[in-house]
Amino acid sequence: MNRQELIQHIREKKSYLCVGLDTDKQKLPAHLFSEEDPVFAFNRAIIDATLDHCVAYKINTAFYEANGLAGWQSMQRTLEYIPKTHFTIADAKRGDIGNTSTQYAKAFFEAMNFDSITVAPYMGRDSVKPFLDFEGKWTIVLGLTSNEGAFDFQFLKNETDGKELYKQVLTTVSHWGSPQNLMFVVGATKTEQLAEVRAMLPDHFFLVPGVGAQGGSIQEVSIQAMNQDVGLLINASRQILFASSGTDFAEAAAMQARMMQDAMKLFL
Amino acid sequence: MNRQELIQHIREKKSYLCVGLDTDKQKLPAHLFSEEDPVFAFNRAIIDATLDHCVAYKINTAFYEANGLAGWQSMQRTLEYIPKTHFTIADAKRGDIGNTSTQYAKAFFEAMNFDSITVAPYMGRDSVKPFLDFEGKWTIVLGLTSNEGAFDFQFLKNETDGKELYKQVLTTVSHWGSPQNLMFVVGATKTEQLAEVRAMLPDHFFLVPGVGAQGGSIQEVSIQAMNQDVGLLINASRQILFASSGTDFAEAAAMQARMMQDAMKLFL
Repeated sequence: MNRQELIQHIREKKSYLCVGLDTDKQKLPAHLFSEEDPVFAFNRAIIDATLDHCVAYKINTAFYEANGLAGWQSMQRTLEYIPKTHFTIADAKRGDIGNTSTQYAKAFFEAMNFDSITVAPYMGRDSVKPFLDFEGKWTIVLGLTSNEGAFDFQFLKNETDGKELYKQVLTTVSHWGSPQNLMFVVGATKTEQLAEVRAMLPDHFFLVPGVGAQGGSIQEVSIQAMNQDVGLLINASRQILFASSGTDFAEAAAMQARMMQDAMKLFL
Repeated sequence: MNRQELIQHIREKKSYLCVGLDTDKQKLPAHLFSEEDPVFAFNRAIIDATLDHCVAYKINTAFYEANGLAGWQSMQRTLEYIPKTHFTIADAKRGDIGNTSTQYAKAFFEAMNFDSITVAPYMGRDSVKPFLDFEGKWTIVLGLTSNEGAFDFQFLKNETDGKELYKQVLTTVSHWGSPQNLMFVVGATKTEQLAEVRAMLPDHFFLVPGVGAQGGSIQEVSIQAMNQDVGLLINASRQILFASSGTDFAEAAAMQARMMQDAMKLFL
């Protein structure tokens, strides 16, 4: 899905919600364990229930890998079930030397057909470029993350100009791609920094985790970081997936997603 | 495998060689494609041929993920085939917020039974700790990588004390674990830095990539960075795996591994 199509979906649906499929097998409603693939059965119901309220799905690969071979299969099934109208994100945080990053890109862009993948920046240019080289695909690089550990290294100021590491990462990486194939992860919990990051990168889409369970708010993020093309995909995972642990989990998820969409409508 | 056992294996075998199973399906000898699982057939032959010359095997997960579900299966088969006398590394470069890192740890330490996993440090403490919390397992954190892109961020000097980012990462992360459960990736291509890093961290094991195809040398690395417990696992991948592209690939791999072991014997 290209940038223009993504923006169009957001405008039509009046939503920039991304539903994060962090599907923890241990938290699934009990009745799903009679299914052949309970994780997929859960995701299918979640997708059916939230489809009208979101524009993207983010599959957190860790939760699938934890189930071994069966997990990898649940991930593929889930990806194939998501309709082409929705932007798909492999939240995989990959990145390695060039020949290895190329293999990761093949895994998520060819063996599976994700629109995008999240990538860690620590290893630099040749670890990120192989993803950007895939025509029609998106690379989403970690800039400022939503977790507490972000303060360990991302805020270290460099000697030359006193700029924090995450700003250096955002600036440097922005030259490796364009707003047509490159997004950044910018956490919702660092609200003070959101407007600053938007000023630095007026055109790029940001994937914003940290709303809900981690404490960020849709309003705050939208006020600080929306641009004229919206430029935001706000992710929510646990808040939607596990809104209810009973047989009504899908209805509860739909209600949560709809509430978030309603909050977004005010900004569109 | 604990630290004492690893050191003992190194001393007995007079080798600190790690064979990197970066098994690129496209580079396999043609005759293997009649096998049901050509990647595993290749790895099995490589393992049989190199077992006496190395103490560790490093599975580069990207090359398996690129083959989809079949690749994940080849990875599991390969891991199960490696004898318990050899230290196993999932070279996966994972790392995410706490609840997600826990899932990655489960994937590689429980669903599969690797001794260790490589982890990227950008997201800080809560992205690394869940791996360290697994009793009897090892976390190998990226410090200074062997690739060109290492110069993009790892050498940025911080304002407070002029220390490079990779040094800050090594120092900070070293407090999160101990030399009993924590190693660092330190690239062989940055020879000037190797002795400095060893002075900073006298006790930790270093996993050293970049020998061979990337240009580093066993002699140089050993002179600069060996400690009294050896403290090194030097990895070679392409140089061993693809020493020959013919039916004699395993013999050629054994010869390469033996030459490297011979180079190491001089230091033990």
